[in-house]
Amino acid sequence: MTESLARHLACIDCGGRYPLGYRLECERCRGLLELTYDLERLRKEGPALFSGTGLWRYAPVLPIADPAHRVTLGEGGTPLLDCPRLAAQLGVRRLLLKFDGPNPTGTVKDRSSATAIAAALQFGYRATSVVSSGNAGSSIAAYSARAGLRSLIFAYERASAPKLLHMAATTADLVIYQGVYDDLITLWDRLVEERLFFDCGASRNAYKQEGKKTLAYEIAEQTAFTPPDVVVAPVAVGETFIATARGFREMREAGWIPRVPLMVAAQATRANAIARAFRDGTPIRPLKIGYTVAEGLAAGNPGKKGEWVLRLLHDLKGLAGDAEDEEILDVQRLLARVEGVWAGPTGVATLAVLRRLLAGKQLDPAQTICVIVSETGLKTEAELPSRQGTAFDHDSLRRLVLERLGSA
Amino acid sequence: MTESLARHLACIDCGGRYPLGYRLECERCRGLLELTYDLERLRKEGPALFSGTGLWRYAPVLPIADPAHRVTLGEGGTPLLDCPRLAAQLGVRRLLLKFDGPNPTGTVKDRSSATAIAAALQFGYRATSVVSSGNAGSSIAAYSARAGLRSLIFAYERASAPKLLHMAATTADLVIYQGVYDDLITLWDRLVEERLFFDCGASRNAYKQEGKKTLAYEIAEQTAFTPPDVVVAPVAVGETFIATARGFREMREAGWIPRVPLMVAAQATRANAIARAFRDGTPIRPLKIGYTVAEGLAAGNPGKKGEWVLRLLHDLKGLAGDAEDEEILDVQRLLARVEGVWAGPTGVATLAVLRRLLAGKQLDPAQTICVIVSETGLKTEAELPSRQGTAFDHDSLRRLVLERLGSA
Repeated sequence: MTESLARHLACIDCGGRYPLGYRLECERCRGLLELTYDLERLRKEGPALFSGTGLWRYAPVLPIADPAHRVTLGEGGTPLLDCPRLAAQLGVRRLLLKFDGPNPTGTVKDRSSATAIAAALQFGYRATSVVSSGNAGSSIAAYSARAGLRSLIFAYERASAPKLLHMAATTADLVIYQGVYDDLITLWDRLVEERLFFDCGASRNAYKQEGKKTLAYEIAEQTAFTPPDVVVAPVAVGETFIATARGFREMREAGWIPRVPLMVAAQATRANAIARAFRDGTPIRPLKIGYTVAEGLAAGNPGKKGEWVLRLLHDLKGLAGDAEDEEILDVQRLLARVEGVWAGPTGVATLAVLRRLLAGKQLDPAQTICVIVSETGLKTEAELPSRQGTAFDHDSLRRLVLERLGSA
Repeated sequence: MTESLARHLACIDCGGRYPLGYRLECERCRGLLELTYDLERLRKEGPALFSGTGLWRYAPVLPIADPAHRVTLGEGGTPLLDCPRLAAQLGVRRLLLKFDGPNPTGTVKDRSSATAIAAALQFGYRATSVVSSGNAGSSIAAYSARAGLRSLIFAYERASAPKLLHMAATTADLVIYQGVYDDLITLWDRLVEERLFFDCGASRNAYKQEGKKTLAYEIAEQTAFTPPDVVVAPVAVGETFIATARGFREMREAGWIPRVPLMVAAQATRANAIARAFRDGTPIRPLKIGYTVAEGLAAGNPGKKGEWVLRLLHDLKGLAGDAEDEEILDVQRLLARVEGVWAGPTGVATLAVLRRLLAGKQLDPAQTICVIVSETGLKTEAELPSRQGTAFDHDSLRRLVLERLGSA
């Protein structure tokens, strides 16, 4: 079926309920809003509700009523890879990679962009905007173009070259901003109120966030509804983590899965405001941050979403951790060589955090652990390899092959 | 079902038949070999034969018997995108893009790498090798790593930076060669005979080529077995074109589809040996070529595969065409802005050729045309965009937004 079972927007703080309009916070208490669904129908009909492929397979649990608004570039339906060799290296029983690199723009952002732009159409907007470290920008630009909307994209000045090129290709309105994400997002969030564009930011828009919930639904379907014991999700502002946790919770409430996996929030050490607060048992103290190779995690002030992450960690008895840039780059190389998966630093930060938590004995290695790898390696910038090629003749080629593979 | 219905290797020249071993050419006449299947079963059971997702959904029409050998990184299952806005710009009734960018390494090569490496396992090899302009190299390296095999990758010295970085990440044995593909492939093809590695080249290995046949099966399923009137496929040596045409022919012979679409072979003008021969009605005359932005199409001497392409064009009453580098880059930008699809020059050469054939009235614009776009744009190298960011305060940000989006 293709009917949406979304019913209300509900305030996560005071429980206030609103009809399904374009609303970004609670009128009463300014709390964040989340979408609620017809749980009775979910319970009764079960996963047979879903049909088709890709993200819109999950249309019943997404908030877009009219199929004509469901814009797509073919996002979702990404692989869940069993990685026995890497599992052995890390010393865990079973390791699953939810690899979101094979999305149309190479990252998990395409899930939230699909529902964001669909919502922009649903609410009659002609233009979109986002402040981005790079991935959200190119994704929102791509989906806006696909829907025939204009997009005004603010991109981090230190975003990798492939990300900048990608954004320049997909939007006519690219603006490079000085400083990190935190420098601009507060100003931009205030401008959202003027409704000159549809809010494609990560701070408040429940419709945008909802697309990432499909991560949980896919992982559940790909494991025949016996999901992994542990799921490690990346956290910048918290969208992916919150959406994934909400997806699992929804399925548990509908009786589709026995329990929500232990959720781990993974950050870069250089932008670890949430992991710190979790560790210290304190409220979140915003950080003044610099560059981290995990560009997509470079947010020092996660705002209200950060508090929501902490609350979910508490409610679900989850964990948080972070990893240094060198650890992230090391695990990026390891993953490429051991399993053939070429993922970006933003994508493998989760894996680096997992390795740390295992080393610190904070996770049980006898469990099945799923790591969300949110970004392809093709967006990684690096110095050019040498372009000095070698000319071969039959003999020199044969010698080289024997030398390299003679013992293989 | 997961049983393979492959039955023989058959010579495309003399019809000689061989059991399913590792054999690269006909013993009698040195002709190329193709795989044959149990057509009776295909006819009787129909598409219900297929189950699961991704490339191995099509295991019954692939030549890998043991499911344990079916290596995967989540390839296949890529979107078929209806592109109404671009169709209007090109003046065709309906335009479908088979976008193979969302594959694990960003290109169509992952389809053939999956079956190539599976065959390497099937035949007991421990090492693989390929001569590549960049995409095949990183794909073969990735799948070899995934299967625990060594890979010796020869890469074109002018391959884009993202391709070189990708290859360096996924293999320990990367060798940059001088000159274009043609300079090395003849020497390398001779070395294949010594069986120091499994042949992952495009010249002869029927097991490798077979993976790309899934393009045809996916297009057919995605159109409910009423495939498009025209399919435009890229041609360097010819693997993608031949495999796609064979897939459609197989389905027609099994009675699944009424007819094979009109197949168009698309080349870069700077490497257009096949398109020239087709136009002039002559045998293929190998070209001495230089650089083309469509790096993956940079082959001047397609060898026997090229003759096979010509034969298929003749048998199926197809067409061939080519496009200049500037046309390719122009259509790359157009596609990104109009439909939000960021594809590489190698990928959009097909679209540029389509535009030329339409301008020359060689194709009927009232038909449904499907273009295979074989490569993500994330492997495109370009000069760095300016990294000079702008600092904003509330007023300057608001002014900018009004200026850009005030009229949206």
